[in-house]
This record gives sequence, C-alpha cells and structure tokens, in this order.
Amino acid sequence: MSDSVRKYDVVVVGAGPTGLLFSACLARWGYKIKHIDIRSEATVAGRADGIQPRSLDLLCNMGLKDDIMAHKPGTFRDVAFWDPDPSGLGISRTGSWPSCPASVSARYPFTTTLHQGLIEDVLIRDLERRGVHILRPWSILAFSVDTQCPDVEYPVQVKIQNMNTGDVEGIQSKYLFSGEGVKSSIRKKLGIQMSYRGSPLVNQWGVIDARISTDFPDIKSKCNIHSEAGSMMIIPRERDILRFYVQLPAESGKTCTLDDMQEVARKVLHPFRVEWEYVEWFSSYKVAQGIAAKYSSDSQRVFLGGDACHTHSPKAGQGMNTGFLDAQNLAWKIHAVQRGFASRSILATYEHERMHVAKRLLDFDASYNKLFSERRQNHNGGQPEDDDFVQAFREACDFTSGYGVTYPPNVLNLDHTHPLSAIALLSSAYPAKTTLRAGTLFPAVDVTRVIDNSTVHLEQAVPFNGAFRIYIFAGQTTTAGIPAALADFARYSLQKGSYYSSFPPVQNEGTGNFGSHCPPLPIYAFCTIFALHRSDIDIDKMVPRLLGSDRSQVYADDAAGEGTTNDTTHRRMGTDGNASAVVVVRPDGYIGCIVRLVEGSATVDVLNAYFGRFVTRSMGSRLKEEGLAGIDVPVLRR
Amino acid sequence: MSDSVRKYDVVVVGAGPTGLLFSACLARWGYKIKHIDIRSEATVAGRADGIQPRSLDLLCNMGLKDDIMAHKPGTFRDVAFWDPDPSGLGISRTGSWPSCPASVSARYPFTTTLHQGLIEDVLIRDLERRGVHILRPWSILAFSVDTQCPDVEYPVQVKIQNMNTGDVEGIQSKYLFSGEGVKSSIRKKLGIQMSYRGSPLVNQWGVIDARISTDFPDIKSKCNIHSEAGSMMIIPRERDILRFYVQLPAESGKTCTLDDMQEVARKVLHPFRVEWEYVEWFSSYKVAQGIAAKYSSDSQRVFLGGDACHTHSPKAGQGMNTGFLDAQNLAWKIHAVQRGFASRSILATYEHERMHVAKRLLDFDASYNKLFSERRQNHNGGQPEDDDFVQAFREACDFTSGYGVTYPPNVLNLDHTHPLSAIALLSSAYPAKTTLRAGTLFPAVDVTRVIDNSTVHLEQAVPFNGAFRIYIFAGQTTTAGIPAALADFARYSLQKGSYYSSFPPVQNEGTGNFGSHCPPLPIYAFCTIFALHRSDIDIDKMVPRLLGSDRSQVYADDAAGEGTTNDTTHRRMGTDGNASAVVVVRPDGYIGCIVRLVEGSATVDVLNAYFGRFVTRSMGSRLKEEGLAGIDVPVLRR
Repeated sequence: MSDSVRKYDVVVVGAGPTGLLFSACLARWGYKIKHIDIRSEATVAGRADGIQPRSLDLLCNMGLKDDIMAHKPGTFRDVAFWDPDPSGLGISRTGSWPSCPASVSARYPFTTTLHQGLIEDVLIRDLERRGVHILRPWSILAFSVDTQCPDVEYPVQVKIQNMNTGDVEGIQSKYLFSGEGVKSSIRKKLGIQMSYRGSPLVNQWGVIDARISTDFPDIKSKCNIHSEAGSMMIIPRERDILRFYVQLPAESGKTCTLDDMQEVARKVLHPFRVEWEYVEWFSSYKVAQGIAAKYSSDSQRVFLGGDACHTHSPKAGQGMNTGFLDAQNLAWKIHAVQRGFASRSILATYEHERMHVAKRLLDFDASYNKLFSERRQNHNGGQPEDDDFVQAFREACDFTSGYGVTYPPNVLNLDHTHPLSAIALLSSAYPAKTTLRAGTLFPAVDVTRVIDNSTVHLEQAVPFNGAFRIYIFAGQTTTAGIPAALADFARYSLQKGSYYSSFPPVQNEGTGNFGSHCPPLPIYAFCTIFALHRSDIDIDKMVPRLLGSDRSQVYADDAAGEGTTNDTTHRRMGTDGNASAVVVVRPDGYIGCIVRLVEGSATVDVLNAYFGRFVTRSMGSRLKEEGLAGIDVPVLRR
Repeated sequence: MSDSVRKYDVVVVGAGPTGLLFSACLARWGYKIKHIDIRSEATVAGRADGIQPRSLDLLCNMGLKDDIMAHKPGTFRDVAFWDPDPSGLGISRTGSWPSCPASVSARYPFTTTLHQGLIEDVLIRDLERRGVHILRPWSILAFSVDTQCPDVEYPVQVKIQNMNTGDVEGIQSKYLFSGEGVKSSIRKKLGIQMSYRGSPLVNQWGVIDARISTDFPDIKSKCNIHSEAGSMMIIPRERDILRFYVQLPAESGKTCTLDDMQEVARKVLHPFRVEWEYVEWFSSYKVAQGIAAKYSSDSQRVFLGGDACHTHSPKAGQGMNTGFLDAQNLAWKIHAVQRGFASRSILATYEHERMHVAKRLLDFDASYNKLFSERRQNHNGGQPEDDDFVQAFREACDFTSGYGVTYPPNVLNLDHTHPLSAIALLSSAYPAKTTLRAGTLFPAVDVTRVIDNSTVHLEQAVPFNGAFRIYIFAGQTTTAGIPAALADFARYSLQKGSYYSSFPPVQNEGTGNFGSHCPPLPIYAFCTIFALHRSDIDIDKMVPRLLGSDRSQVYADDAAGEGTTNDTTHRRMGTDGNASAVVVVRPDGYIGCIVRLVEGSATVDVLNAYFGRFVTRSMGSRLKEEGLAGIDVPVLRR
C-alpha cells in the first residue's frame, strides 16, 4: 500500500451530528479526512431533533442553514405549561412563554426540529460535495500516538476494520477524533473515566415520535405537561410529527411497551382526545448525568466530542447542539495550528472551554429533570410565575438557546480581570469602554453594506472560514478624509512585526499547512463600521486601503430603522460615536478581545499582545518588549 | 391515435418566462398541458434578467422564490446617477436613490437579477416535478376554434410540427396560449394588429453582459450615466456580471460591432478604468413601443401574453415582469371558469386589466426613453432633485417596482365610484371606511400566527392555490366569547344560497372541473386577524368554526414590534379596532372588495352581491332579490 493512500490529516470515528460537523468544518479548508462509522447507514428515525437558535447561526455561518430549511423542519417559539386543573379533572394551561425570549437577542428566536437522519443527511451531502465520503460499516480496532517523536508529521497510528469483509487497514494520521457517542471506544482505550453524578435517577422515560389526531390545542408549541397521571413533554416536529417524552411508572423497567407509553400519554392528555395515526419511532431511557475526566489524550492528538464526553437527558434538546459546538470549537483550533498560525498549546483550550460548558449543562439538566419529574400541585389561583419549574425554565432560556454559552478567560479570551490581560493593560487602549465581554458571542446586529445598500447580519459578515474577524467600529467622522485613529490602526497593523504583517494574506503558508490542495484562506478578515448614514460614507476617501480593499466589508450603522440614530450598533457594543472600538472575534464567533480605537499605536499594541500570546511568530510589539514573562498561564497546562 | 393522447386542457406555445409561468400556474391545479417551443433549448444567455420586487412576491406565492435565490442572483437596491462633471472632464455622481423606496412598501425592496435561462430553468424544473415537459423544437402550424358549438368540451383544434422530424400532430384543446414573443404567429393568425407609437425612435442601443475589472465605484448599484460621449445604463447581475445598455451613435446601424459598443462604454466611463475580462453576450436593438389591438380571440379560447401583445424598451426591466403578471392573471381566471365557479364572462377581464397596464407601461417607457436618450447638461450646482430625468425616475418607482400596477373597476374589482357597485351600496356595510382600494395589491403586512407565535407575511398567508382570500379584520374584543359581528359573519356565510354555501369546500366539483386528476382545491380561504395581543386570543372560544377550523389562519395584529399598539395592520388597512373590515382578495393578490364587518347580515350581503356578479350559481342574497338588473357591465363586452 502506497504512502499516499494511508496518510490522512484526520481520522474521524462516528458519523453522528458531532463527528459529521467536525469533518464538515475541516473539509472546508481542504483537509484530507478518513471518516468511518460502525453503522451500516445513517440514522433512520428518532434520536436528536432540536436545533437551538445558536446552532442555526452556526449552520448559517457554514452555509448550511438553507439546506436544513429545505427539509421543511418544524419550528416552535413558545413553551406552554399545562398543570392539573383545579377542578381535579384533567389539565389546563397555566401559561405560555417564548422559548427564546427577546432578552436573549437571538437572530432566529425559535427552535428548529428535524429528524436527526435529515440533519446528518445535510452534513453528509456537504461532505460529499467536498470529496469526503463516510465509510460504513467500519470500526476502530486500535490506535497509538508516537509520543517519542512529538514533531513527526503523522504521529497517530490507527487500525480500522471493515465490519462486513473483516478487512483491516492501517492509517497514519495527524489527529484522531471520537464522535462515537456515549459508548466511545476511543475514550475507553485512552482510559478516560466518565464520572456520574450520584446514582442514575429512578425515573424512566419513554420517547415516541408519532402523528396523532387530537383536539389538544397547543401542538404547535413545546408543551410541558404535569398531570395527576404523570409528566409529559411534547415537541412539534416536521411533517406534523410530534415527539412525546412520557414519564413512566418507576416499576415499569425494561418491559415497558409502546402500548404502555401510549396509555400514559393518553391519560396525561385527558380530557383531550388522542388517536395515534402513525408511530415513527419509540424508545425508553433513564436519565444519567455523566462527564469525561478529560477531553483528549495528553499528546493533544486524540480528542473526544459530543456524547463521547458528556451525557444527560435529552429533554432540553442540548445533546446535538453541544456536540456541534464541541466540534466547531476544536476544528478551527486544529486548523489554526496546522496552518502554522497558532501554537499547539491552544489545543488545550478545547477542553478548558467545552468542559466548562458541559458542567454547566449537567447542573442545568439535573435541576431541570428533578423539577420535571416531581408531581406538581394544582394551581389554585397562584401566579405561575411564582412556580419553581417555570422560574427555572425561564432562567434557563439564555443557556438552552445556546446564546448563554460563555467561555472563561484564557489565552484566547482576553479578560481584564484575568492575569493574562496584564500585558494589554499597559496600553492606553485597554480595557475598552464596552458592554461586550471576551468569551461571549459577538451579538446579532444589523448594519448596511455601503456598496449595495443591503442590510447585513454583521455577525455573519464573515463566513466560517477559519479567519479571526476584526470588527472596527470607527464611530463618527466629520471629515471626508480618513479619521486619524483609523489611519493609525491601518498604519501600525502594517508595521513590521505586527499581528497582521507577521501573517500577511495569500502567501504560501509553508510546512505548517496541509499541503497544496488547501487553498489560501484568510487569517484575518476586517469589517469597518461607521456611525454614519450610508450616504455620508465615501469608501475611497475615508477607508484605509488595508480595510477597504474588500469594499463589501465597509458598513454604515444606519440599519436600525426610522427614527433611530446612526450608531445603534455602536451603542449595542457599549461604545458610541465618540468612543470607538475594535472587537476581535474568533473564527467561531466568540469575542477574543475588545480594544479602544485610539490615535497612535496603542490599539494595535493590544492586538499584538493578544495574538502574541498564542501565535507561532514573535510579535514586534512595544508591549512585548517591555516584557511580562512571569505571568502564569493556567489553562496551558500541557 | 387514441383520444386520450390528443386531448389537452391547454396548449401553450413558447417557453419563455411568460409561457412557462402560465403553465406553472395551471400545472399546480392538475391541468393537462401541451407546452411546445420552437427553440431547441432554453435561453443560453442575454435577454431579460430583472425580477422586480412585486414579481418576487408572485414567485414566492407560488413557492418558487427559494429556487430563484438558490441560483445566487444579483440584487440591487440603489440607482446612482452620474453626469458630466462640471470641470468638463469625465463624469461624477450627482445622486443615488433607492430603486424601490420605503414609500412603495415592498416586501422585498430590491431588484433581483439573474440570467433569463436560469429563471426559465426554475420554472422548467417546477413543471417537470408536476409532470409537464417542454417539447422542443416544435412549432404551431395552424389552429381553429369551433365557434358553431361553443359549449363543446374541446373547441380548439391545434396542429403542431416537430421541427427536427417534420412529424405533424393534431391536438384537441380547451385553450391555446401564445407566449411566443413579439413575432407571435398565433397573433398573426388571429389577424390581430400591433399598433406602434409614432415611428421607431432613431436611437439604437447596444447590450453587453460582461465581467470587467474597473475602479468605477458603483458597480453594485444600477447606474444611469449621462456623459459627453453618450448615455449608458449599468445593472449588476449574478456572478459579478454587469449588464451594459450603451447608447450607440445614430448612424451606427446594423453594422455596430462588439468593439464599437465597448469603445462607447469605455468613453462613457472615462476617467474610470475598464478592462473587459469576459463577455457573455451582446446584442443591439432599436426602441419601439407597440401594443396588440386585442389580447384574445373573440371566442375567449385563444390568448396572447407577454411580448406577444406589448413591446417596449428593456431598460426599465419590465418585459418579463409584465409577462409574468399577464400569465398569472389569465391562469387563475381560466381555473375559476373551468372548475365551475366563475362565469366564462370573467375571461374578458384579462384584456381589460392587462391592456390597461400595458398602455401605462408604454406611456412610461416612451417618456423615460426620451429623457434617457437626451444629452444632459452639466450640473453646475443645481439640485439634482430638480432634474426632469431624476424626477421621472423617482415618480416611476411605484410603477416599475410592480406595486403601482393597478386594475380599473370591473366585475372583479368592486369600486364604489363604479356603477357595478350600486348593488353593494344598498348594504349598510358598504363602502367600508378604509384606505385600501379595489384593483390594487393587498399590502405587505406582518401579523402573528396565534398557534405557533410565528411572524407571518399576511399577504403570503394563502399560497397561489386559486382560492379567493377573505381577510377578516375582527378588531378588538373585550369578551372571551365570539364577537357578535364575527358570529354573524359566519352565520350568514353558512346560510343557504350565500357566496360560501353555494360553493362549499371539498366537494366533487362536477363537470366544470378538469376531471379526477385535479385534487380538490379551496374556493375560499379565510384569515381572521384580531386587534389584540396574541396571548389574549383563545381560538376555541373566540373564533367561529367556519373561520377557526384551520387554526393556522388565525392571527394577532401584534407583530409591529415594541412600543406599538395591537392594531398596526388594522390601521394600515385604514380601519382600526372599532371599525373592522372584511377584505376580499383575488387569487392573484389584488383586492376585489372591501366591506365593513358589522352585526347582522349586511357584511355577507355585500359578499353575496360581489361574488353573485360573476359566479355560476345564483346567490340567494337579499340584495339580489331587490334587483338591479339594468346596471351596465361595460367590461363584459363578449
């Protein structure tokens, strides 16, 4: 077997949503991927189905939202709460709230529901267009990492087997990723333990995907139903299918049949009529919250994502969405390393960030499940707002929508309360006066593209192309020339040894990259936004060449509609026309650092310091030269 | 040859945008279509390319907008005006305005540009999904209409020929449609004359579709350029292609080459740089405004649409859009007749409405061309707003966007200034207090769907399914019961002999329909809108069964956003929470009549009178019984 056949950039095991999204990210950048799955075919029915608002942003940024929507998914915006009727007979609605309220500021404030197989199909077809084909049924037999020679190009040896023919194949790879789910063989082979919280709960749940005929009025909302006969959740799906989560009697055990589940559902919905027209899938499960002790091998060559490293109940619709974010988080970091831009040390931030989120998810899930499994009291005129369950639900919206997922300070998320930021604090441009925070998502805001007068979703202005996005909020300017701070920003960015000039665009990126089949991709993407009406912006006169060479990335902050001022987005950033800002956003949409836009070198000094902590080339920063070598870097433990 | 092979509901000749859209409409309702085109393949390059805002609504209502957008068309929102620079050297921008300003209230305030072949492709694939395949290259040899037996089922005899094999085929048909373009053989065979306005203008124009490299800054806007070297228009297209309309020297004649055109374009754009990277297509034309004397045979069995009955210059991008509206206007009327709902007499309203629009278009085109062909003076500090050309342009936006296309009063458009309305004036519910007008488009407004809290474009709430849309603006109600006027509306609608009970849904529609392959389609579609916040609407308690049986068509008028009252859409209709209204909208989105929603029978009396004028069954209306037989019906001249 020739070398060319056996060498891959990445081996991915498991073609569920997490593994597929991981491959889809890397396939965009031309990596050579071996992707196997032990199943003979993609998911046929059941399993995950809820795409949370933030995940739709993520898919949109990858150009996949339209493909999802082409399947005509279900969507819901509301959660209705039903409780035992005070009369003692049946159930009645005690409230209805948005599932993603306006306070979350989601671009798409609804949950999109689609059978997992169709979501997988969107990703599989995207991969096929990019030349990556999932091999089935193949399993991983063994793997090892050459830790003696950490700098070897393909340090991971993988042995895989065709489950039909028994053929065994050896592969050399740079990375290995497990998207195998909760029973991850890679996790077991790495000896990574799952730790479970307490004992698994006694409550057993049934799941049914079905179409029914009913006079129950809320089948276009998500419904949380507590009745004298038990609890149930209903989720509207595509093709008028509904998903039912049915609480089963504690004693039901493994013998619980579809009939048993349907009988419980019928009792819970009484006095409303239920006729089962078509059952697509059913299953049952017990709730257990578990988390892996580590997310990777010590070598940072083998990684786990999705259910392979965290398990919880499906009812808040977080499993697939958390897996998506795991996959994207890791993918861009591997790309940043492999293209020769970032140090290998940033790979440790994958576990640092994503384990932090998984722990929050488990906390949420445990409390939510406890509340959900408890029998609720009749509402005798009490305000539902006072109810623990409803309170917990409302407080959780921010997190469950995906917008409340935040990352702690680390080398990528520069927070002025964190020791890492000391270097930046030496600049007069830091910290910026802003309401944004590093480690949170860049907000969904509208601006007007100057060249064509179209309204642009600024958070989507740059696709998921691996580039750091540098948003320059240039504020107001009364001159027709280039404002001084903007001119200085461009000037110092172009100075030798800066964050920018150390990694100029369209160069051959050398040995760190994955070879000639990988097209040159931008490392930085600039978006310049003026707090002006579009008609007052003359790109040729007002925008430095560095920022204006892509004319489509110059914007007016005048898209908020009639009766508003031309700095709505500037204000949303917590700055305004007089106190402008540069916001550095990571390739995955999370804010890396926020700097004041000032005259002189101070703004670029902070950017040099920020990038200087994790890139491979030495920055010629003035700040750097002043030296702060003793600062502890807690997250870079390897 | 068996009868089944030779009999078709409709024969369509010509597979340009007009003919294809006509077939696409009828194919939705199951009609059996023979569609031929003399060309061997669809349009490869050039020709029409601009989809105006209103046409995008139309395509959206047919479920085709996403298919158009999947081709990643160009879009533009602005028109820039360039004029000779006061220095005497070159050109300078004298202004830029929205091509579809806010005053037009378009749902999509931009022009979508896409090569005509791709637009045809969207329609061809839609037809193929519905089993209609365009036959090429076939031409029509002859046709005749059996006027002796006007009630025969297939009165049209058509003879067509395969241009490759010479095979001739005879067809029996119910209707024949010419979408053949300006050289329509069917028009000639009918002996219908084109009348041209004056002599064709001396100005000759060149057209080039090309990609260029340039430093001209406005290539994402439509540009109207007047220079010392002549006039030019630039239109941005998909794939960074630009369309150039170049005014050629009067003496250039037919000998004008691509090089000549490019040289003019280069001179016009001076001092900006022009390098021709890729020329996709070019052509030249002289401007002539012509209109057919009639749009159909006297039998109302053979019809013309699109360029077959009106020609004008392409520069305002109206040809294809006018053809679309011709086709849709005729298609739903044929459907209304063939399903046994409307009298054959309504077919005369096709010419009445569409010739009216074509005449307005020719007036506009003549004045616009004249202004465009004239050399403009330097702007020496004068306000461009004062300029004739700019003025004409701005006034024309309403018309060119498609939103200003209005139909005169006739049997379908009940205007209280028109004799036809006398019958309705006997009701206390007519005329309604409203700013709407029959014959105009139902406006683009947002409402909230009660069952799922989604924001709905009310004008798109009912697809183009052939149904009349009955929007009931139910206003406010402080009771939890059904408001009295709404209850009466439902009650009298269900009374024997009413507009509704005369044509109840889901019945076998009998001999008037096209047979069993046509699924039952609704004749009426109700949308009920309350001037309330969504949370205050209980469908089961507040909506009569007639209107609430499709729960998805009950809306709250609370979608206008924060700080607004819950009657924004009611007010947009010119009514408000206290003076509610019923708006009857034709299947093509134009308003048919507007009635007050009042207690008692008065509201339904007007609907009975309105529909009673053109449906096939006698309405038991109280108003009808009072009799107004002598009213002249001017448009129903056949």
